[in-house]
Amino acid sequence: MPSGVSVAVIGATGAAGQMTLRLLEERKFPVRELRCFASERSLGKTVTFRGDAVPVRRVEPSAFSGIEIAFCSAGSAQSREIAPLLVRAGATVVDKSNAFRMDREVPLVVPEINPHALKTHRGIVASPNCTTIVTVMPLKPLHDAGRLRRVIATSYQAVSGAGVNGIEDLRQQTQAWARGEAITPKFFPHQIAFNLIPHIDSFGADGYTGEERKLVDETRKILEAPELRISPTTVRVPVFTCHSVAVNAETEERIGAERARALFEGFPGLRLWDDPAQARYPMPLTVEGGDECYVGRVRDDLSHPNALNFWVVGDQLRKGAATNAVQIAELLLGS
Amino acid sequence: MPSGVSVAVIGATGAAGQMTLRLLEERKFPVRELRCFASERSLGKTVTFRGDAVPVRRVEPSAFSGIEIAFCSAGSAQSREIAPLLVRAGATVVDKSNAFRMDREVPLVVPEINPHALKTHRGIVASPNCTTIVTVMPLKPLHDAGRLRRVIATSYQAVSGAGVNGIEDLRQQTQAWARGEAITPKFFPHQIAFNLIPHIDSFGADGYTGEERKLVDETRKILEAPELRISPTTVRVPVFTCHSVAVNAETEERIGAERARALFEGFPGLRLWDDPAQARYPMPLTVEGGDECYVGRVRDDLSHPNALNFWVVGDQLRKGAATNAVQIAELLLGS
Repeated sequence: MPSGVSVAVIGATGAAGQMTLRLLEERKFPVRELRCFASERSLGKTVTFRGDAVPVRRVEPSAFSGIEIAFCSAGSAQSREIAPLLVRAGATVVDKSNAFRMDREVPLVVPEINPHALKTHRGIVASPNCTTIVTVMPLKPLHDAGRLRRVIATSYQAVSGAGVNGIEDLRQQTQAWARGEAITPKFFPHQIAFNLIPHIDSFGADGYTGEERKLVDETRKILEAPELRISPTTVRVPVFTCHSVAVNAETEERIGAERARALFEGFPGLRLWDDPAQARYPMPLTVEGGDECYVGRVRDDLSHPNALNFWVVGDQLRKGAATNAVQIAELLLGS
Repeated sequence: MPSGVSVAVIGATGAAGQMTLRLLEERKFPVRELRCFASERSLGKTVTFRGDAVPVRRVEPSAFSGIEIAFCSAGSAQSREIAPLLVRAGATVVDKSNAFRMDREVPLVVPEINPHALKTHRGIVASPNCTTIVTVMPLKPLHDAGRLRRVIATSYQAVSGAGVNGIEDLRQQTQAWARGEAITPKFFPHQIAFNLIPHIDSFGADGYTGEERKLVDETRKILEAPELRISPTTVRVPVFTCHSVAVNAETEERIGAERARALFEGFPGLRLWDDPAQARYPMPLTVEGGDECYVGRVRDDLSHPNALNFWVVGDQLRKGAATNAVQIAELLLGS
């Protein structure tokens, strides 16, 4: 390779797109040329990369020529349209949307867990949903050590998961509260400041939300455990950028809290913060800005001999989105 | 009875004490005479009852003479000291602290669930921990219908559970954030605004907190199910006054989501808000001020044929504290 690759970022003005640009810088990704794309309403804007203002372009096939790696952080509908055009232009697409994750021909990759899945890609690699990434990271070492049987995952999800609009909704609502003014939700279906909304994505006939279904389907695909039993509950909380998940994990073979702690500590991309005596456990505010997932409150389940309880927190915009996507691209370059 | 009873409220200036006074008014409790007590630092203050300013008195045995019903919303140490003095003075004590809940000679009562337990009281009746009350309310009809086998409860707890100081901490921290100032936690071990703290009460050797232990022990006592398997995780969230709990409940006999909804709807003190198509489910902001517990997101567990998932929300200061205590007193008067 001469001196780096030609990179496209689609959805460059969104929360995940912005963080992707930052991660490409931070991780010194070998960008030779950068082209940034966004929807019509962002035309005329610029984004910043390595101190330079990069103009935001209109998405059109003619602009894709020569692109080698494309990060797609647009919505699912846009990805379904744009990704094939990028592939046709010769690019490998790392897609952050829900469009291709469950496509049997598209690998769904968390680099610390299933890098081997990349080998089969045909131009598109999917990065999982943020909540899935945070949940599946600590599940992997448990699955390897004792074979997972059943997982009950209960989430506390940041507003950043809903993008810039979600972040703005929490900010504006809280500012209105501080000024003693009435609060009008603009983006979420209800007020999120000082509230909880047990509803992320749309509801299915069985009462589960799309977000909950993703957690089940994607976790099974990443762990290559199609029969794994998973019971999900996902809830939006008034937190800016980290997702937290309370996990109950039952394994075929008993692992126990002490060994689980050692397994978490030894797994790449996981950090163990578990010292109750020092009031040390992961929290959104202390995890924010980190590229790993942080696990704490590890304890034997009081209700089942082969189960464990733990608490995992990850930065939704980093490991939950941009970090994972850039890690995938790093693997693609290395292979 | 002539025209009402002589009532004492201990801890009358605290969050639960204040709400107890309000509930006594709202529910038209037959108060003939009211005496309010608080700690030394509240002496000289007054509290308001039925429009009158009632002076706050010092706790001393001589002031207890003639009291018939006493609501004790002080801390556990204070309750342990004061309750026996009140009983000796002839009062029946409804105690909101943790002091007597697991005492075998003290009934632990949720009026909709185990009113019969009141019969055995010897002067003290304990009201359960707020999180227990919210969680156990929907568990009762499931237990009656299908016999509970295992419960996994994951909480989202309001700052009011920590009293006036907790409420002030969230308020002041959020105001500081809105002014762009640095945030200094005064009461909680960490910042609570825009954060989650998976730590309520102190940690035990097994990694569970006191709050989590209470949920296990009290639920078993109230349901008279000493062997019931319960797995608790309790988390403080930046919400003012309602506790929410995501519950996974497994029963000996399969109940199913549809029948569970009917059971919840038919149980006194429970309300079913479960219409996903209308984005209708309980949330802290919509439940605040209500005296019942609100259940929604009722669905069959995808991971177990005999289990259900649901979401329950209750006002921590009302049903979680004052309402339950006043309901107990109403039963005591009626019996």
